[in-house]
Amino acid sequence: MQDLIIVGGGPAGMTAAIFAARFKLNAIIIAKEVGGLILTTNLIENWPGEIKTSGLALMKKMENHVKALGVPIVTDEVISIEKRAKGFIIKTKLNKTYECKAVILATGTKRRKLNVPGEKEYSGRGVSYCATCDGPFFKDKIAGVVGGSNSAAREALLLAEYAKKVYIIHRREKIRAEPMIAEKVYNNKKIEIINNANILEIKGNGLIKKVILDNGRELPLDGLFIDIGYIPQTELAKSLGCKLNENGEVIIDKSSRTNVPYVYAAGDCADAPYKQAITGAAEGAIAAFSAYEDLKSS
Amino acid sequence: MQDLIIVGGGPAGMTAAIFAARFKLNAIIIAKEVGGLILTTNLIENWPGEIKTSGLALMKKMENHVKALGVPIVTDEVISIEKRAKGFIIKTKLNKTYECKAVILATGTKRRKLNVPGEKEYSGRGVSYCATCDGPFFKDKIAGVVGGSNSAAREALLLAEYAKKVYIIHRREKIRAEPMIAEKVYNNKKIEIINNANILEIKGNGLIKKVILDNGRELPLDGLFIDIGYIPQTELAKSLGCKLNENGEVIIDKSSRTNVPYVYAAGDCADAPYKQAITGAAEGAIAAFSAYEDLKSS
Repeated sequence: MQDLIIVGGGPAGMTAAIFAARFKLNAIIIAKEVGGLILTTNLIENWPGEIKTSGLALMKKMENHVKALGVPIVTDEVISIEKRAKGFIIKTKLNKTYECKAVILATGTKRRKLNVPGEKEYSGRGVSYCATCDGPFFKDKIAGVVGGSNSAAREALLLAEYAKKVYIIHRREKIRAEPMIAEKVYNNKKIEIINNANILEIKGNGLIKKVILDNGRELPLDGLFIDIGYIPQTELAKSLGCKLNENGEVIIDKSSRTNVPYVYAAGDCADAPYKQAITGAAEGAIAAFSAYEDLKSS
Repeated sequence: MQDLIIVGGGPAGMTAAIFAARFKLNAIIIAKEVGGLILTTNLIENWPGEIKTSGLALMKKMENHVKALGVPIVTDEVISIEKRAKGFIIKTKLNKTYECKAVILATGTKRRKLNVPGEKEYSGRGVSYCATCDGPFFKDKIAGVVGGSNSAAREALLLAEYAKKVYIIHRREKIRAEPMIAEKVYNNKKIEIINNANILEIKGNGLIKKVILDNGRELPLDGLFIDIGYIPQTELAKSLGCKLNENGEVIIDKSSRTNVPYVYAAGDCADAPYKQAITGAAEGAIAAFSAYEDLKSS
């Protein structure tokens, strides 16, 4: 019987583990992947104290920190969490069963799909959801990015380091990336922004060749990066009876507590107004503190 | 006219500056001291990704980060903030006047005093509020620590590296340091914990010689480190009409907003349930985000 199981291995889950160790809680992390979605971020400039780092480098440091404190990181996928009279039963894809007294959900988000004809067919054949992973394949080629967020703008900037031309295809009048990133995009001569446009179809011939826009334009492309937002991973939270907000995020209070006793949430799956590595990490620390407080008095 | 003035140079203020720069806000930090109270912490083991660091090293990295992003750090003390029809007028001890549209209060806390006879007289003559600063003076001597918190326990551990004997004098039945730190204290043969005791008086002869306890005991001592909690620095917040909680901390919502428009708070002066460098930093990031959102739409 563990004191605490942390589901998720991103900044929130890792920081929860670091603080759980300090409280001498008998804790483990179960994560599909050490690091989480931040691994797809090539350039991080806002982790306090690190002028420039990458998602991979930051998460490697956190992983080493967690390991130094002796918290096991199990690479597996939690498929169910069941509340019992006392504690929880957790089952995983690799057919393991765990018991614990408290659970921190740091399950993050997954990328939203475009849901147009051709997307599935050309996925991995020019259609990608991660410029950091696949950008280098597009050296001297033409790439498109769908989306107008910080993340989409950063993907375009990264792609412009390889590709000869990058289109940003955005459904609104103006990209909504934060000013410092947006300015870099506007000043980059390789990047052309096509506002007020949606993709109707992705076409090709074994590999992607072009996209058809709803403004009548056809864009020849070698690669298309889809970055149109995230879906919070809250199936486990829902199954436990945690209240979600209108965006499907787990509602937490200032103590990272959900409405279900001994269930806490932190990071991108929770309902914070502003989501960054630093805010997710803080929510993870607070969740571990609350778990410690609740278990101490139980 | 600045967009944003950040009052305080600890983890919360520094991180607010980093995020303000990313939002292209025209911001400055005004701080009595770069780094804040965390500079008195010798050993930090819970900043995610840093297995062991010090307050000084962590804050030096943050200062470099802030400077690399071009946010000026002014060493001065804010003595008043006045709300005008549009924006704020800030006056400082060095007789400077600043104008700004928004303010982030990251003013931290100061150490609580014991308020017993002899405390003032022997301050700097054996009575100290910072083991990191003064610990090395007590090599092979006898030192006392007053308090039972994490911070007090850490001070005792640090002092035990120098002193031949360290007493922890604590008014309750048991120190309340987190288990990982408490265990180190219990296992340290140089440290003796005196529970259920209060200091009535500090005595000496030019330098501290002993303390008189309310259990009748007299302890001969060469140094006494007082670590009995913190008083939030919220005079500026109060003068602006910010609501405080029963501990005198500024009440903020999940967006680091106070009840006063364009005034935000972050870090140890705010009412978070759990206070750490990582949580203060996150509140600072969120405060900068909220300031950006509010100024954009104003």
